[in-house]
Amino acid sequence: MKVDGSSRRPIEAGADGRTVVVIDQTRLPHEFVTLTLTTMAEAAQAIRAMLVRGAPLIGATAAYGVALAMREDPTDQGLAEAIETLRATRPTAVNLFWALERMRGDLQDQAPSARAEIAWTRAGAIAEEDVAINSAIGDHGLKLIEAAVAARPGGQGPLNILTHCNAGWLATVDWGTALSPIYKAHDAGIDVHVWVDETRPRNQGASLTAWELGAHGVPATVIVDNAGGHLMQHGMVDLCITGTDRTTATGDVCNKIGTYLKALAAHDNGIPFHVALPGPTIDWTVRDGVREIPIEERDGAEVGQVTGRLQDGRIAASPAQPPAPRAANPALSVTLAWA
Amino acid sequence: MKVDGSSRRPIEAGADGRTVVVIDQTRLPHEFVTLTLTTMAEAAQAIRAMLVRGAPLIGATAAYGVALAMREDPTDQGLAEAIETLRATRPTAVNLFWALERMRGDLQDQAPSARAEIAWTRAGAIAEEDVAINSAIGDHGLKLIEAAVAARPGGQGPLNILTHCNAGWLATVDWGTALSPIYKAHDAGIDVHVWVDETRPRNQGASLTAWELGAHGVPATVIVDNAGGHLMQHGMVDLCITGTDRTTATGDVCNKIGTYLKALAAHDNGIPFHVALPGPTIDWTVRDGVREIPIEERDGAEVGQVTGRLQDGRIAASPAQPPAPRAANPALSVTLAWA
Repeated sequence: MKVDGSSRRPIEAGADGRTVVVIDQTRLPHEFVTLTLTTMAEAAQAIRAMLVRGAPLIGATAAYGVALAMREDPTDQGLAEAIETLRATRPTAVNLFWALERMRGDLQDQAPSARAEIAWTRAGAIAEEDVAINSAIGDHGLKLIEAAVAARPGGQGPLNILTHCNAGWLATVDWGTALSPIYKAHDAGIDVHVWVDETRPRNQGASLTAWELGAHGVPATVIVDNAGGHLMQHGMVDLCITGTDRTTATGDVCNKIGTYLKALAAHDNGIPFHVALPGPTIDWTVRDGVREIPIEERDGAEVGQVTGRLQDGRIAASPAQPPAPRAANPALSVTLAWA
Repeated sequence: MKVDGSSRRPIEAGADGRTVVVIDQTRLPHEFVTLTLTTMAEAAQAIRAMLVRGAPLIGATAAYGVALAMREDPTDQGLAEAIETLRATRPTAVNLFWALERMRGDLQDQAPSARAEIAWTRAGAIAEEDVAINSAIGDHGLKLIEAAVAARPGGQGPLNILTHCNAGWLATVDWGTALSPIYKAHDAGIDVHVWVDETRPRNQGASLTAWELGAHGVPATVIVDNAGGHLMQHGMVDLCITGTDRTTATGDVCNKIGTYLKALAAHDNGIPFHVALPGPTIDWTVRDGVREIPIEERDGAEVGQVTGRLQDGRIAASPAQPPAPRAANPALSVTLAWA
């Protein structure tokens, strides 16, 4: 997608075959800063410190991390250590483990001297695969958007789409999942407008989704997470699209905390609620999302903290509500598929 | 209710009959600061600048504002000007208008020389009436809480109650509405714990509800507005209680934005959802809450702003998400009564 009119990806391989450039997403939306990774350790740190986030992007970054490691030490031990280090960066990222196992499978039977080149090519293939998957999601979703536009009487202004959290190009190698159909529709000249849930406590909607939609030129409006139901009651939402972290065999969707509330409101108001996902996100071993999927409980301090730019220009996290007796902070919620 | 073990009210009349002490709620939860009002202009400013907020508390403050005005100028013109000034402080506060009209009715046929004393007594009566109403709400609600405790198997830990926004003693003269049954239950020795919705964008839950519950000693946990549905799915909420700004003849409840989403989740999980309100909050002229109740659209800048304490100790509002393309900010949502 675009930033200031130029195509950008959140991860880009250097033409020298030895460097990887990532966008530092912890600085968004306040600053657009890129960082050049030249070692496996830097790639691991970029994942650990959440400069890159989003399951597909983490997977691609890890794959490039292995490729950088093979420039440094292409021995069996070097390969094993790189995979071990990268594996420990985030505890529950399925794509991370998948990408690392794939790199291991592609490399372990190769001669060490050949590994660096092969790893670079394979990492690029993993990245391009993600782009192709997300583009296909966009093509499928575009048909839903076109149908929604066709079903409306004319002269109603833009088609209003609500999304929660960030499942956009910043979370993937390009296009995104939930936002991919929206980019396809916008690029096809369809008049779309996006309601962006702020997405407390980490504000990925306000920080990332609003930024990337704006950077590409898609009209978007940030709302607090409380507002969506009200907008739906008043006919101001035509459809909802979100991503998912994990989906069960029965269609239960585990996604950012609060997704469930928006799905309830969409159901109550007869508004289509779509979840955009690639096949590998489906966990065929789980049948009951609420009972079987463990939900990460993050640090309660996140609830009382906010990151902003101070008047002197510095960016700082500061406590918004100091003496809260205590705070609970589940990260995800499950939306059951309606029978 | 109590602060540091001593009984406090958000508005207290001085024994001298000439001063009124209010808690500056714009400083909470960062600082506990009281302010002594000695003139009608100061009372008007306290309402205008939202040092006092909550419909019943605004009404009581306005009544005392008239009483202070009668010390300054008890003529017909003084009375008319005081009511006019106080009336213009907040545009849509029904209790404000009601309290002022009641003061006018009580004073206009009295001799100017008698007005100051009468006004002081009447303002006190308006305040005490509010306390009695809220205490009665608490007594009614306590029965619901006792029944919920009795219906549970033993040994389950505290009864978990979820609330949204602030309908506590800070919004009234004492007890609050939604929180009144909770204070009654806690004071009666029932083991209650409150899930406090942060309540974006103005954070009244995290700032005010969590503070006042904590000050009185009621166990409470702040959660983001996104979390409640997830907690309900996992049996971690036994009942919900909120307040209301306006309720229709058919039982539709207009309350802080986001209340509707929690009501949907409670309904979906078979959890009782109670709304605590005094009779005058019911608008018998309105039948369809969604169609007929206009919703205040507040400044979008609120969505991107947060107030916090900086490291140097200063309290400041700072933009949390600077380049948001734009933000929409409806203040209230309507929850329809289920047939």
